Amino acid sequence: MARNIQSLERAAAMLRLLAGGERRLGLSEIASALGLAKGTAHGILRTLQAEGFVEQESASGRYQLGAELLRLGNSYLDVHELRARALVWTDDLARSSGESVYLGVLHQQGVLIVHHVFRPDDSRQVLEVGAMQPLHSTALGKVLAAYDPVAHSEAAEADWPALTTRTVVDPDDFEGVLDITRARGYASDVEETWEGIASVAAPIHDRRRMPVGAVGITGAVERVQKDGELRPDLIAAVRDCARAVSRDLGAGRF
Amino acid sequence: MARNIQSLERAAAMLRLLAGGERRLGLSEIASALGLAKGTAHGILRTLQAEGFVEQESASGRYQLGAELLRLGNSYLDVHELRARALVWTDDLARSSGESVYLGVLHQQGVLIVHHVFRPDDSRQVLEVGAMQPLHSTALGKVLAAYDPVAHSEAAEADWPALTTRTVVDPDDFEGVLDITRARGYASDVEETWEGIASVAAPIHDRRRMPVGAVGITGAVERVQKDGELRPDLIAAVRDCARAVSRDLGAGRF
Repeated sequence: MARNIQSLERAAAMLRLLAGGERRLGLSEIASALGLAKGTAHGILRTLQAEGFVEQESASGRYQLGAELLRLGNSYLDVHELRARALVWTDDLARSSGESVYLGVLHQQGVLIVHHVFRPDDSRQVLEVGAMQPLHSTALGKVLAAYDPVAHSEAAEADWPALTTRTVVDPDDFEGVLDITRARGYASDVEETWEGIASVAAPIHDRRRMPVGAVGITGAVERVQKDGELRPDLIAAVRDCARAVSRDLGAGRF
Repeated sequence: MARNIQSLERAAAMLRLLAGGERRLGLSEIASALGLAKGTAHGILRTLQAEGFVEQESASGRYQLGAELLRLGNSYLDVHELRARALVWTDDLARSSGESVYLGVLHQQGVLIVHHVFRPDDSRQVLEVGAMQPLHSTALGKVLAAYDPVAHSEAAEADWPALTTRTVVDPDDFEGVLDITRARGYASDVEETWEGIASVAAPIHDRRRMPVGAVGITGAVERVQKDGELRPDLIAAVRDCARAVSRDLGAGRF
């Protein structure tokens, strides 16, 4: 079997390193973190810098991610069929639910947010497109793990931090949650990821009935629940949205 | 002088190819576009795919950009000091002007939008973070070309398409526009990039008085102009915003 190209793998590892933790690192830190000689690391960094993937702070000489990644990430969104099909439906869901809407797909061992509609009020909100959410605790993640076998095995290999006191961290308990998710057709997260925040999500299928993503609403637990239960009108609205996007992707009605 | 790493340069060229034009390409198309042997191109694509930078459509076998670029592009935004400092001020500008606000930085031969605040009404708007705007015709681009010598020389090397009948395409005329921009402290674009759209932008300076970006508003020419002139209150609001962000970045008041 042909091997992958080592310099490319190292360059990708550098970008991942700069994307997490400190985010501005010197040459020595990068070389030692990746177990490379300084000269090797410098050659890769210099090329990444020439291509715009990495920038160097002029004052400190430290490296950080470069603007070309933002441009390419935007192009990724442009080509994303699921996102394009979901734009109108997620706008409608935000309006009818009064809550923020997220569209997520499996990426590595988590949920990558590919679309985010702000809660329709005047509050300041931060766009989370490109952010990652955990598979084991969020409604989007549970939907992906319940319906997509790849997501299921990625979830099994991921870390399971107890993000709140309510996070399910036992694998057997989690399998039970996924069984319930499949039986109901939706998943929920009531303060399992963020204190005070609840969410509801449902699966999106394509024309081959494959699960390609999840869509859901997220909001203050006081609004999303009523009398200690998820509001049925919100569950219905989320599932309606997921069905509408699935139909737009060519999924059958039955 | 040490040479850059060829396989990395080729990988970057592939990503740029997939970011423009067709966006879903087969192996043969990619190899021939870049003048590579198919085996060489395949080795690079396979590694890019393993790292998440490229995805392969299962039905057609064609390649497209991958989700990891979105995640890394989002991390780039997180580390962006100018953007972080500008968040509050650009929100205020959108509210006071009633128009959409863009924050741009020089990237390659254009303006990269690193922040975009929607026009504060209920209309459907598409987020343009990560999109590029031309240097020669937009208010943001003229500001960068007027104040940043690097942007000025990039503008000189860029294509100058006549996007509308009002686009300035003569280099000498453009130098005159930049002189006016520097004399006034702001730049405008009245239907020079998009029919019916006008914009106003002003420069942002850092603690070393270097021009690090531009901020501006964009809207329907009927709203942004009054009696055939740019509304002075909008110009003042844009310049106030640019000064406020500059001060937050450590620029002196004088």
